[in-house]
Amino acid sequence: MFEKIMHVDSSLSKEDLKVQIKQLRNKLALQQHQIKEKQVPVLINIDGWGQAGKGTLLSHMIRELDPRFYQVYAYKEENEEESRKPLLWRYIENIPERGKISFFDTSYIEELTIKSVTKYLSEKKLNHHLSEVCTLERQLRDNDYIIVKLFLHISKEEEAHRNIKLLEDRTTSWKVTDLDRLQVERRGKYEKAYEYILEKTDTDYNPWHIIPAKDKKEAEFLALTFITDTIEEVLNHPVTAPPITENNFPLLKMPELSSVPLDQDISDEEYKERLDDLQDKLSKLNNRIYKQGIPIVIAYEGWDASGKGGNIKRLTHSFDARGCNVHPIAAPSPEEKAKHYLWRFSTRLPKSSHVTLFDRSWYGRVLVERIEEYCSEDDWKRAYNEINEFEKWISDWGAIVIKFWIQIDKDTQLKRFEERQANPEKIWKITDEDWRNREKWDDYEVAVNEMLQKTSTSYAPWHIIESNSKKYARIKTLEIVLAAIEERLDDY
Amino acid sequence: MFEKIMHVDSSLSKEDLKVQIKQLRNKLALQQHQIKEKQVPVLINIDGWGQAGKGTLLSHMIRELDPRFYQVYAYKEENEEESRKPLLWRYIENIPERGKISFFDTSYIEELTIKSVTKYLSEKKLNHHLSEVCTLERQLRDNDYIIVKLFLHISKEEEAHRNIKLLEDRTTSWKVTDLDRLQVERRGKYEKAYEYILEKTDTDYNPWHIIPAKDKKEAEFLALTFITDTIEEVLNHPVTAPPITENNFPLLKMPELSSVPLDQDISDEEYKERLDDLQDKLSKLNNRIYKQGIPIVIAYEGWDASGKGGNIKRLTHSFDARGCNVHPIAAPSPEEKAKHYLWRFSTRLPKSSHVTLFDRSWYGRVLVERIEEYCSEDDWKRAYNEINEFEKWISDWGAIVIKFWIQIDKDTQLKRFEERQANPEKIWKITDEDWRNREKWDDYEVAVNEMLQKTSTSYAPWHIIESNSKKYARIKTLEIVLAAIEERLDDY
Repeated sequence: MFEKIMHVDSSLSKEDLKVQIKQLRNKLALQQHQIKEKQVPVLINIDGWGQAGKGTLLSHMIRELDPRFYQVYAYKEENEEESRKPLLWRYIENIPERGKISFFDTSYIEELTIKSVTKYLSEKKLNHHLSEVCTLERQLRDNDYIIVKLFLHISKEEEAHRNIKLLEDRTTSWKVTDLDRLQVERRGKYEKAYEYILEKTDTDYNPWHIIPAKDKKEAEFLALTFITDTIEEVLNHPVTAPPITENNFPLLKMPELSSVPLDQDISDEEYKERLDDLQDKLSKLNNRIYKQGIPIVIAYEGWDASGKGGNIKRLTHSFDARGCNVHPIAAPSPEEKAKHYLWRFSTRLPKSSHVTLFDRSWYGRVLVERIEEYCSEDDWKRAYNEINEFEKWISDWGAIVIKFWIQIDKDTQLKRFEERQANPEKIWKITDEDWRNREKWDDYEVAVNEMLQKTSTSYAPWHIIESNSKKYARIKTLEIVLAAIEERLDDY
Repeated sequence: MFEKIMHVDSSLSKEDLKVQIKQLRNKLALQQHQIKEKQVPVLINIDGWGQAGKGTLLSHMIRELDPRFYQVYAYKEENEEESRKPLLWRYIENIPERGKISFFDTSYIEELTIKSVTKYLSEKKLNHHLSEVCTLERQLRDNDYIIVKLFLHISKEEEAHRNIKLLEDRTTSWKVTDLDRLQVERRGKYEKAYEYILEKTDTDYNPWHIIPAKDKKEAEFLALTFITDTIEEVLNHPVTAPPITENNFPLLKMPELSSVPLDQDISDEEYKERLDDLQDKLSKLNNRIYKQGIPIVIAYEGWDASGKGGNIKRLTHSFDARGCNVHPIAAPSPEEKAKHYLWRFSTRLPKSSHVTLFDRSWYGRVLVERIEEYCSEDDWKRAYNEINEFEKWISDWGAIVIKFWIQIDKDTQLKRFEERQANPEKIWKITDEDWRNREKWDDYEVAVNEMLQKTSTSYAPWHIIESNSKKYARIKTLEIVLAAIEERLDDY
């Protein structure tokens, strides 16, 4: 990679360069308005060698930008909270909203390089994370994100020289960290690692731009050129329908909803006995889950009035309240809507050792958003694979991922709706929207069936929970969760 | 405090106690619906000795609650990010939304006690933070929050005994931390500290409930009794108009807006020269601000078209982009609206060493919310003092707090509106709302004058920036910020 370094047209005089840089800064400011108007999110990653001038470059490039519509994120070592999340989590957290720019001052690339050189990551794990990076960047691009990736390159000698200059001055010596020193000492290893990592993430759709950064003006000229060219290119040729990537994951065979018998029942006595027993068993496993740092992610989907709420309650109360969260998912807030649709779920993932339940989930994309046409047909068709990738990411991180479809028949729903309507204490539970959704039962059934067929993977299986009897349903979910945890604990 | 421990009516048999607890759990579940309906936020702090059973109590109390409408937060030692924010920050971050309950598993009280015993906090600083706690709790209560504070008490012998029991079992020994051991060893010191801290925060409106926790069932009975009684009391006797607390802070005399001359000007040449000079000086101070960990908070308010945006841009670009954020403040999101109105500003405060600019701010409460009647008269009248307290909190934390009112006259606004309307590149900057606001100029002027009179404090002064000449205004703000930083750096 470092060989294909671009150089500035040497015929440019210092003065010309200055003029051109100014023009480019203004061009970027103009593009900022276009981005805002067209509601395109832009992510600019700035990686590079220590002391290559990333911070200075950034401060200069943004001179003409409107500070309300960009944000700079400087990444250092992760803190305890972040270390208990998936590796890419803290970068995903800060992806831009539509119409805004996020600058990452060193991205996941630097983190991966350091972790690989210091042997914190094995080669296998490194490769695994690199493929996650490519998946993430492809998903972002497919969802309208513009990504520009810059790497500021200086020679080992230059880096050492700049370190020394900073160290000589007492007001700047603190800027040279142990990591900076180490990077110079082990430059060969770092070079090899960066070469490998940059190459593995140098894709057609999100290529790297290696920028010689010895001369700060030349570096800014090149950086601004790459950024403005990329934005211009995408704004002029927006991808309206990105290809629907094929699913690569082994799928479990799921039955059609219509073929699922719903006549199960359970006596009050048996229910009480098994409920106590299961909750007791689960809460006894809590300590082991906690100690082994296993995160658990459970998604609930199901018909209105299928009994999700009561089901979730029984499950929640089997876990330590301090490590268990329930996220009710309604329509996205404006901020959430302005980001990749999986963002609001990524940011709500549990820490290691914790449990998160989603009362409705990312499957909204292929259910309500599909039916109500809140997204395009391409969007929801693409989503099956995107969701499989998302769940693979969580699962590979180490999470137990379980998904429940709470199933009832149409008559049972009607009965429960009418009960709610008749009961003053429950009437708040039933809205006009519930009745409208009920009219679309058949459309939803088609969507649910397709979802079950296309997203039930070995690492994140769907379970259909027959819930005409709510009590039967509760026992079944508890059993499934218990079994999944026991299976995982056996692995250790 | 520990003397006035409540005891359970000893005539209650074990069986009776069990039945009563069940009834209380159901009562709390019913109250949860009422809370939701009446949109009241509830905060429940659970503090107490190590191994007093806080976690178990919590898990039992919430058995009947709907997990979608409560959240449990377990606090441990703060991480690096949190340690770079004001002490109460991470608790404020998790205050409940209207209609929901937040449980804090150990609150700021435990943090303050540990920090006081370990001498991390001097007595003076401790007292300072204790008064901040009282202010916070009073502000929350004044803004409809119900707060219940429980302290689980066990004797030193019991605590030691429980530690030993946990340590004997290999699957639970990890639960006894060094801090737990230390607490038993230094019980006398801890008792003294807790006594003091509980007393100082035991207010009429937010009293402590000390609960003997040797018997888990008795503890739960008492805890549920205190919680449900408090909620019932408040729901039955809501405070519709909390008293408007008097301002305690020395105020700076501010001129009436109408008396501020606006005929300043500056030549293009002088502007350029001074701008370069000031930006240069400011960016040179960046290293020192950074090293000394000083946070800077700058709030902008001003008329529409007064030139806030351009002004902010010049200021932003004087700081290191990696440590400087601009938050444009628009109408609150539904989540933000459901919390204390200062919440969305508290959570956006910078870390130490960083700069945050607010493009419009918490003063919306006494400006747009007053004029448009988005809050009650009592609310905005109470806000002057609440805001002074809020800024005192930030300032005492160590932040430089600066507030700018960008001032123009009505004719200049009209001229700028018309220019925007006539210029296709700027027309997006002008909306119908701007015209509507213009019609309310006089009302706003009254509100702005009152705001300037009532919230310009020595620690967070207002500066009126004459902005008929935008260039003059930019130079003046830069000078003020530079002077404020230089003054602070001199202090060191």
